Amino acid sequence: MFKAKAQDDYVQVDQVDWQDFPEDFHSGGVKWKLLHVSPEMAFWTVLFYCPKGSVLQPHIHHGPAEGWIFDGAIQVRGGPEVGGVLGIKDGFIYEAAGAEHDETVMREDTTFVLQMIGPLSWVKKDGSHVIQSWETAQELWEQQTQKQAA
Amino acid sequence: MFKAKAQDDYVQVDQVDWQDFPEDFHSGGVKWKLLHVSPEMAFWTVLFYCPKGSVLQPHIHHGPAEGWIFDGAIQVRGGPEVGGVLGIKDGFIYEAAGAEHDETVMREDTTFVLQMIGPLSWVKKDGSHVIQSWETAQELWEQQTQKQAA
Amino acid sequence: MFKAKAQDDYVQVDQVDWQDFPEDFHSGGVKWKLLHVSPEMAFWTVLFYCPKGSVLQPHIHHGPAEGWIFDGAIQVRGGPEVGGVLGIKDGFIYEAAGAEHDETVMREDTTFVLQMIGPLSWVKKDGSHVIQSWETAQELWEQQTQKQAA
Amino acid sequence: MFKAKAQDDYVQVDQVDWQDFPEDFHSGGVKWKLLHVSPEMAFWTVLFYCPKGSVLQPHIHHGPAEGWIFDGAIQVRGGPEVGGVLGIKDGFIYEAAGAEHDETVMREDTTFVLQMIGPLSWVKKDGSHVIQSWETAQELWEQQTQKQAA
Repeated sequence: MFKAKAQDDYVQVDQVDWQDFPEDFHSGGVKWKLLHVSPEMAFWTVLFYCPKGSVLQPHIHHGPAEGWIFDGAIQVRGGPEVGGVLGIKDGFIYEAAGAEHDETVMREDTTFVLQMIGPLSWVKKDGSHVIQSWETAQELWEQQTQKQAA
Repeated sequence: MFKAKAQDDYVQVDQVDWQDFPEDFHSGGVKWKLLHVSPEMAFWTVLFYCPKGSVLQPHIHHGPAEGWIFDGAIQVRGGPEVGGVLGIKDGFIYEAAGAEHDETVMREDTTFVLQMIGPLSWVKKDGSHVIQSWETAQELWEQQTQKQAA
Repeated sequence: MFKAKAQDDYVQVDQVDWQDFPEDFHSGGVKWKLLHVSPEMAFWTVLFYCPKGSVLQPHIHHGPAEGWIFDGAIQVRGGPEVGGVLGIKDGFIYEAAGAEHDETVMREDTTFVLQMIGPLSWVKKDGSHVIQSWETAQELWEQQTQKQAA
Repeated sequence: MFKAKAQDDYVQVDQVDWQDFPEDFHSGGVKWKLLHVSPEMAFWTVLFYCPKGSVLQPHIHHGPAEGWIFDGAIQVRGGPEVGGVLGIKDGFIYEAAGAEHDETVMREDTTFVLQMIGPLSWVKKDGSHVIQSWETAQELWEQQTQKQAA
């Protein structure tokens, strides 16, 4: 039964190449880096780069998420015109478990990191729903980075 | 910004009435009691009563789950014939985040409690998929217990 | 970086022998069984057997705890005389992160299971403080069960 | 029993004033900003500013921690000379539950954010041990920011 401690980790993020974030989940050329997964608790931490005008599809956060905006302008929860926030440089974000987000639009080139607990439900561009978890995220990342390495 | 501690709780479970678990998620008359939700982390704790021969529909645990079997015989992960376990009285269960379960069959009247973190994805009897979270569980429970109270 | 899913588990608890819970943390012959640890999140799940008249030392729950009382009578949060509860058979307990408990007295032979997240701080009988975590709990359990196996 | 969703949040961090991090836990003028607490799960998220030559006292992380280094040079887990890492700009850190850190030295002015789950145990400069939790952190932050507001 004995179980070992989890492993500490360190990622020099600027030395990790960007990969394409799935087209199903956005328009406008969003890139991502998967920084960490915690399989036991279903944590996953992602750095996003979203060009000006890019749009993330509607989604639900099934667990809490914490994030940091490094640069740019992102319409958090629809933006200030509809009760949300315009997230900019040095903005800390907390999304509650169960948060439902409509399309998320970038008003500038935006870079932010997000630690998510549990899966996202995405509404794809064809209207169907799909779940993205630490596990499918990791599978995609492995596939993308191996392909690149090959 | 100040946030208060969460509230302690105590439920005398044998004084809580059973409610019908949704037909979409099972056949055979499964009952449930919702004991606790933790909205911040998407925890929810459920007591199930599953008559002999009842079947839970296929589902995915998107976060870890811990459970205790009080009585009965439940084919955990398909049962021992396919690499799973026959869970009986005084059985402790741990399901990992991402665990995919096919139909779960009861060989005897079975009572067990399950603490789940994050949502379940269910395959309904019509083949479609639906997510059950602490939040939809709570909404259903409120509706069922108020209806009963009325 | 690839990380595997956590392992599912099943423990037939009535086939696990009781071990002595540390004298520093109680008086009156409390026994325990360590059922599960989740190193990544610092979860640990313990079954306790506390004879009538036994007393758990004062302690702080640094994370939330959920429990189930199988039998007996335990003065939860000091008992009903001081605003707490007398926990009995079929009682479900939720303790919030940060809950501080004074001495916990058993009015009957009491068996309960407790899933704890994060460590406990105990006040030992000599007045000093010590932390018990999933890790020190696991170390003690390994030591006790190996000793028994030898 | 009904419980509401947790609240979303957004903090424009550059508009929050730095406060002094407790002298007991460091030398050299470390400052902090408390960005978020999640009482239910004992999460707390802190931005640190540590001048060159400052030293954080030895401590234990009782739950996992994730962090991001914005600038500087921090000897993570003792630094590369003893098997650790020199954390620099764009470094992502993951500390496992139970990680024990000796003195943490800053080789340059260093700014980093850390999301911690569960409490820290600090060894104070007088050799005694003390626990810092989301709750004591929040109490200190309230006291410091109210004092400033007065």
